[in-house]
Amino acid sequence: MRLSEIVARLGGEVIGNPDVAVQRVASLQSAGPGDLSFLAQGRYRGQLRDTRAAAVVLARDERDATELPRIVCDDPYLYFARVAQLFAGAEPVRAGVHPSATVEPGASVAASAAVGAGAYVGRGARLGERVVVGPLCHVGAGAAIGEDSRLHALVSVYAGCVIGARAIVHSGAVIGADGFGMARDGERWTKIPQVGRVVIGDDVEIGANTTIDRGALDDTVIEDGVKLDNQIQIGHNCRIGAHTAMAGCTGVAGSTRIGRHCAIGAAAQILGHLEITDHVQISSCTTISHSIHKAGTYTGLYPSSDNASWARYTAWVRHLDRLAERVRTLEKEKKK
Amino acid sequence: MRLSEIVARLGGEVIGNPDVAVQRVASLQSAGPGDLSFLAQGRYRGQLRDTRAAAVVLARDERDATELPRIVCDDPYLYFARVAQLFAGAEPVRAGVHPSATVEPGASVAASAAVGAGAYVGRGARLGERVVVGPLCHVGAGAAIGEDSRLHALVSVYAGCVIGARAIVHSGAVIGADGFGMARDGERWTKIPQVGRVVIGDDVEIGANTTIDRGALDDTVIEDGVKLDNQIQIGHNCRIGAHTAMAGCTGVAGSTRIGRHCAIGAAAQILGHLEITDHVQISSCTTISHSIHKAGTYTGLYPSSDNASWARYTAWVRHLDRLAERVRTLEKEKKK
Amino acid sequence: MRLSEIVARLGGEVIGNPDVAVQRVASLQSAGPGDLSFLAQGRYRGQLRDTRAAAVVLARDERDATELPRIVCDDPYLYFARVAQLFAGAEPVRAGVHPSATVEPGASVAASAAVGAGAYVGRGARLGERVVVGPLCHVGAGAAIGEDSRLHALVSVYAGCVIGARAIVHSGAVIGADGFGMARDGERWTKIPQVGRVVIGDDVEIGANTTIDRGALDDTVIEDGVKLDNQIQIGHNCRIGAHTAMAGCTGVAGSTRIGRHCAIGAAAQILGHLEITDHVQISSCTTISHSIHKAGTYTGLYPSSDNASWARYTAWVRHLDRLAERVRTLEKEKKK
Repeated sequence: MRLSEIVARLGGEVIGNPDVAVQRVASLQSAGPGDLSFLAQGRYRGQLRDTRAAAVVLARDERDATELPRIVCDDPYLYFARVAQLFAGAEPVRAGVHPSATVEPGASVAASAAVGAGAYVGRGARLGERVVVGPLCHVGAGAAIGEDSRLHALVSVYAGCVIGARAIVHSGAVIGADGFGMARDGERWTKIPQVGRVVIGDDVEIGANTTIDRGALDDTVIEDGVKLDNQIQIGHNCRIGAHTAMAGCTGVAGSTRIGRHCAIGAAAQILGHLEITDHVQISSCTTISHSIHKAGTYTGLYPSSDNASWARYTAWVRHLDRLAERVRTLEKEKKK
Repeated sequence: MRLSEIVARLGGEVIGNPDVAVQRVASLQSAGPGDLSFLAQGRYRGQLRDTRAAAVVLARDERDATELPRIVCDDPYLYFARVAQLFAGAEPVRAGVHPSATVEPGASVAASAAVGAGAYVGRGARLGERVVVGPLCHVGAGAAIGEDSRLHALVSVYAGCVIGARAIVHSGAVIGADGFGMARDGERWTKIPQVGRVVIGDDVEIGANTTIDRGALDDTVIEDGVKLDNQIQIGHNCRIGAHTAMAGCTGVAGSTRIGRHCAIGAAAQILGHLEITDHVQISSCTTISHSIHKAGTYTGLYPSSDNASWARYTAWVRHLDRLAERVRTLEKEKKK
Repeated sequence: MRLSEIVARLGGEVIGNPDVAVQRVASLQSAGPGDLSFLAQGRYRGQLRDTRAAAVVLARDERDATELPRIVCDDPYLYFARVAQLFAGAEPVRAGVHPSATVEPGASVAASAAVGAGAYVGRGARLGERVVVGPLCHVGAGAAIGEDSRLHALVSVYAGCVIGARAIVHSGAVIGADGFGMARDGERWTKIPQVGRVVIGDDVEIGANTTIDRGALDDTVIEDGVKLDNQIQIGHNCRIGAHTAMAGCTGVAGSTRIGRHCAIGAAAQILGHLEITDHVQISSCTTISHSIHKAGTYTGLYPSSDNASWARYTAWVRHLDRLAERVRTLEKEKKK
């Protein structure tokens, strides 16, 4: 694809030869002839000098940072994402049900949908137009998956759960397992049947081995445009607001509501029954134990060090109240 | 089902019209006509005023908190769990082996058991009466699953592992993968074959994507009535005592023994080779690095704050030993 | 197998009757007649006294610690690992493709390889000599798996990923799902296609439900001899150096490079875009937020206590900067 064709589709301005053709996207370091690369952050400018890319994408204020053929635009990272999508194209899918798949009576599978080898689709389930259910997936009875959504191999969607349009769900994700609900019965636990569903909006991506539990009575809700990385756990009755993104290994305990446009760092833990407002950023490895009513960034990372230093300062953590008491004593004596 | 029928089965006392019929359980907020709701905690009393439920379950000392038809009982939450079980009923299961499943020669499948589409049951495995092996499950050679247990779709049980009666195992759970055992061999690692099993008692529930490793030599043991949420990791040679419950994302490293009736909060981490006695509560996001010999609640949560405050106080953590030294100097000078 | 045969194969010296035969390995505590046990750490010497093992493996300096028939050697733990491997033997595998498996046209499956029940092998995938693909595994188009590697049941390998020789991959592992790459597009997220691969060297073990994401543009690389426990998350574009071992529940965020011969404790979290040099040990439950350029042990564990003590000292953490200010005030007054 020529640079001129790219800007015709995606906007931006070509500087240098518009007939240069590119076939792939690549990082500045690994790019070779035929590759289009990009500079999204100034700190990679050194790599720009040495790149073997055929052309690069740059911000307007970096327009003269190279002599290579280039496209200048407002947001090179976003532009690059779109070029990459152009090149990636849609993976070709053969519509139809693989002969080794099982589709129960009463399931509704759109003619343009594909059900992969060994997959199972329960009775009353509905698969919309161009849905791809990968090999060895399980779609429970009465579940519904909206048009253009794709389940990669080995995904489990429990009965009755709903996934919107254009979802991407990665291998090992489990949608709609029972929430962790039990009542004490003397010294034993009695299970509370989990009769709510998981309801997922449009344009959601769910990472590998992420789990989203069904609601106890009401539904667990994932709103439009939410992006979940791998190995995330969402407890029952949570609501995750639209366009919120969560990095890997994060946990959200039951009945917590997270607002729209939040960004949750890796391995954060958000306790149960909390309210997090819109536009909140939570740093990686931070535990949130109180509701957050004000947009902003929240952090709770305990510092690590070489083992000896850590042992030295951490020994004092346990005695902080006594240290504070000693300071108070000194202050009192001072005043005398 | 009429209120009078419910109390005939489960006890409690009807106040108001005993002929009121209910079909579903629901939360106070979302209940509508035909729904039975409940008040388990005083703080939801406001919702009781506004609920559209047909009837509610209440504690004896809340008997006059509403004019709706109601059932009063000792423990509304437990009562509610039992009503919900009544309504949920047993999911109907068609006994028999699905034609697309593979059952190896020498496996023993009770006539009342069900093996779902695409599932695999290895040679010598035993499935008890009314066991349900969901679609696309793997039950390894010689594994045994007790009566009335249910594996949801896409569960893996490795060879030789034992699951008791009435277990519920959710999608993506892996029972009996190799423990993480290696010996150093110069600069390389040599694998130690893991020849123990996982042995699971009766009435255990195991959440989605939870992993329980087989023992190195002896067995990993999960006692009766243990409840494990999602994405929990239990290392080799652990023993989890009866009726202990663990919330999601918790990790228990190898050879640790946890007592009976413990409650472990979400994302807690319990290091290896420890002993935790009975009736211990561990708070969410707490790391336990020493054995616990006394019942009680243990916590180790580092506080989070807005990012600026966190940076301010956390900067001092690294210098705590020096701060303590300065206090000591002041104290010494005082004494002079 | 007689002790004399074992030392003929593995070295070491028999003390006592070399004709004693052993059939199994077992721990000192659970060993019975016919079992070979071992003493790797002095603190188990008490168990040595009481063991019912037929023979034991000991370090040279413990040669007289028992009167049982015994093998003395340099490293009893490593020796024991090798004996256990002798006894475990290779699990017998029937070469060939199970009739219920699906192998797409253009896939290349070695004659000595085995593809289990229900497994799926995509077009252009290559399985080397003696590869075992377990029941219900998914091997994507163009993926390659080297000789003698074994995928346990229910593993997902995405298209184009490469696994070397002698790998062991446990159930639920997901190799090559998309990395978490998105560009902001106003208030929405635009996906960046992840077109790199996962490339895994030889002699790697990957635990149950561990996830390794494919690279965005370049590859995610796991070098030779790396050992990963369960539920580990490796982000896109990471490189894990040869012979590094990671315990369960650890997370490594995108683009981080970890050196060779590192040992990462359970539930450690390593943030993104970092460099960790060779021979680094990271303690369990430690978060690493800066690059590490010097070999050694690094820790960042916040201490846990009984709940009341924790509350007492943790309350002061949030006020550490003010406490430090009070100490400074006292010091200033002193100087006057």
